[in-house]
Amino acid sequence: MQTMGPEVDKVRLMNRLSDLAKIGARPDGSVCRLALTDEDKAARDQVVQCMKDLNMQVHVDQVGNLIGIRHGKTRKEPVVMGSHIDTVPTGGRFDGAAGVVAGLEVVETLNDFEIQTERPIAVVAFTNEEGVRYQNDMTGSRAFCGFISVDEAYTVEGVDGTFFGKELQRIGYKGEFPCGSIHPHAFLELHIEQGPVLDWEQVPVGVVEAITGIAWYEITIQGEANHAGTTPTSMRQDAGLTAARIITYLRKIANSLGENQRATCGAISFSPNVINVIPEKAVLSVDLRNSEDAILKEAEQRLQQFTGECAQQDGVSIETRLLSRIRPEACHPVIVETIKKTVEEMDCPYRLMISGAVHDALIMVRRCPTGMVFVPSKDGLSHNPAEYTSTDELEAGANVLLRTILKLSNMQEM
Amino acid sequence: MQTMGPEVDKVRLMNRLSDLAKIGARPDGSVCRLALTDEDKAARDQVVQCMKDLNMQVHVDQVGNLIGIRHGKTRKEPVVMGSHIDTVPTGGRFDGAAGVVAGLEVVETLNDFEIQTERPIAVVAFTNEEGVRYQNDMTGSRAFCGFISVDEAYTVEGVDGTFFGKELQRIGYKGEFPCGSIHPHAFLELHIEQGPVLDWEQVPVGVVEAITGIAWYEITIQGEANHAGTTPTSMRQDAGLTAARIITYLRKIANSLGENQRATCGAISFSPNVINVIPEKAVLSVDLRNSEDAILKEAEQRLQQFTGECAQQDGVSIETRLLSRIRPEACHPVIVETIKKTVEEMDCPYRLMISGAVHDALIMVRRCPTGMVFVPSKDGLSHNPAEYTSTDELEAGANVLLRTILKLSNMQEM
Repeated sequence: MQTMGPEVDKVRLMNRLSDLAKIGARPDGSVCRLALTDEDKAARDQVVQCMKDLNMQVHVDQVGNLIGIRHGKTRKEPVVMGSHIDTVPTGGRFDGAAGVVAGLEVVETLNDFEIQTERPIAVVAFTNEEGVRYQNDMTGSRAFCGFISVDEAYTVEGVDGTFFGKELQRIGYKGEFPCGSIHPHAFLELHIEQGPVLDWEQVPVGVVEAITGIAWYEITIQGEANHAGTTPTSMRQDAGLTAARIITYLRKIANSLGENQRATCGAISFSPNVINVIPEKAVLSVDLRNSEDAILKEAEQRLQQFTGECAQQDGVSIETRLLSRIRPEACHPVIVETIKKTVEEMDCPYRLMISGAVHDALIMVRRCPTGMVFVPSKDGLSHNPAEYTSTDELEAGANVLLRTILKLSNMQEM
Repeated sequence: MQTMGPEVDKVRLMNRLSDLAKIGARPDGSVCRLALTDEDKAARDQVVQCMKDLNMQVHVDQVGNLIGIRHGKTRKEPVVMGSHIDTVPTGGRFDGAAGVVAGLEVVETLNDFEIQTERPIAVVAFTNEEGVRYQNDMTGSRAFCGFISVDEAYTVEGVDGTFFGKELQRIGYKGEFPCGSIHPHAFLELHIEQGPVLDWEQVPVGVVEAITGIAWYEITIQGEANHAGTTPTSMRQDAGLTAARIITYLRKIANSLGENQRATCGAISFSPNVINVIPEKAVLSVDLRNSEDAILKEAEQRLQQFTGECAQQDGVSIETRLLSRIRPEACHPVIVETIKKTVEEMDCPYRLMISGAVHDALIMVRRCPTGMVFVPSKDGLSHNPAEYTSTDELEAGANVLLRTILKLSNMQEM
């Protein structure tokens, strides 16, 4: 890799990540820092202190997003970097935290090299990205963009019976800075891939072109329970068999709609679920993803058509319920191009890719020009104590972030 | 239907069945009379009293089988009729009870018509056919035939922590009549079909040619849990997909190995069973049945081969565990022929069929010439409060039993 201009300090970067990972650390190496818990508060305190140490102006907004601003030569709209610091119950050290810490490292590098950017540079840690405790995920970025109101956020009840607003107040992070008062010139999120592609291909940087859309369905098949021995095959209405046909068809959908199509059945149940009784009822989940909405819709339509055929052929009734649907979004072409050019200048191997998981960037992309930089996840593991990105990989990603930010902060328009 | 000679009294037959169904009756119309419970004891008391009322000699053997003997002109080996009076937790009124009550009605008819048979006629109610409380099913018939020892039966622990031997003693049915001391000339079991064929075809009598063999497997598929969005299709080891492929293949086995082949997956589980995680593990049950052992073995072999192919193609490991295997058995050809001839003489519609469920007859067939007479189950339902056989159907079955018994009791050899 070619060096040119300022570079992040990888030791400092990893130390900061390790310090954060101590909060909520578990014996198995995982991190448990659910949103708005005491652990989340401690991690917030650490991030805020760091922003202050870096001479950033710190705002806590009404839903608890932490916003650190480094002034630019102008008071134009800022270039914003960010991600989240909450985790799932057995989270890794990198998911979310890597993006926040890399943003802070970029700022410290700018400070060290006494670089004054044209636009202000901001680092944001969004509240409740994971959506484990309060199940509307990405609460912080949604409110930041004005897609949900502050009151909507406050009144969400957690799985533990607490309320978002009250817990936010309890931990001292119900800020007064109005949501929606910052409109970023650009938003950049560095994140671990949470998938195996970069690691498999031994490529340190992924330039994200689009963030996948997701359609979640629950399919309920109603057949007839009967004796597995005495019921002739032709007289069966086997809900389990229909479920199996749908699951195998999902793989056909994935194989026929291009490499960015995903189709998964993760969950299933049979009733009565007994070895010698033909299943009366089967319920299965379907997770369809694509980075292009038209293809995602095609996948959904094929599924619908196939279940209709199954109902006729198998003598069962099938109910398909849409649980949730998130539209895919393309990253901003100028940002994608800028990241790409940066990585090429660094002579760093990279690949263009789709984000198969959702991130705060999926929300931000609807508000302002947005891009994402991926770093590898060893063996594709995430939400797992074994989540791992090497120091060199994270360093490369942070340098991409640094240099892209420098370019973006000088841009007038996109 | 043509009448010829003695006929059973259908009102008396149904009254006796209703009296038995009162013991363990539940509000939903089902009967709960698990083996060796107080309800079983009460039902036994009723059957023994009835045998005595019919001037039968009553023996209770060492495992509690109730044996009523009506003397013949000779002391040759008896012709035995029988079934069981224990039920599953939500059993019907007919399963098992129909065969015992029909046997008693046959004896009462012989008494009424003052018919003296050549051989003795016996009616047996076998202990614990269902195997719900003590999970070695058909305990009574197995011990009757000497296939398990009395001590083996006594030491079985029930699902409620009780022991077979102690409970048998508690209810007063640990008899002294030695198991294995009766060798039947022939055994005949009247039973409800527990399947839909006779009802569907509107045929009142089924002449059973063979009793199905059963092979039960548990298949465990080990893949890799991964993110449903970020893991490319080609990199997946989706245990759930493999399970689905096996389930659809089971139907192919059933469709390609003749009309007596059954292949069912009744139970399944995925781990972690979450909508957005590719299943790491899937466990499914397989129930294969055929009335011919060679074909059943072919089905098992095909399953084994297919799972081997899946393991290779899908990158998963598959463990196939045989849970239980019961060899199919043909009914004795002379008895099948005798029943058939009897039904034809009665001008009663009938069909030859396979028993897809197991019965005490499957045990008895290994000990002595055995046959079965089926009567219809409305909508194929059994083990269900809606279990139903009409009075006329049960009457027809009992008359077939009566007339076949008369023929068999005069036979010297088979």
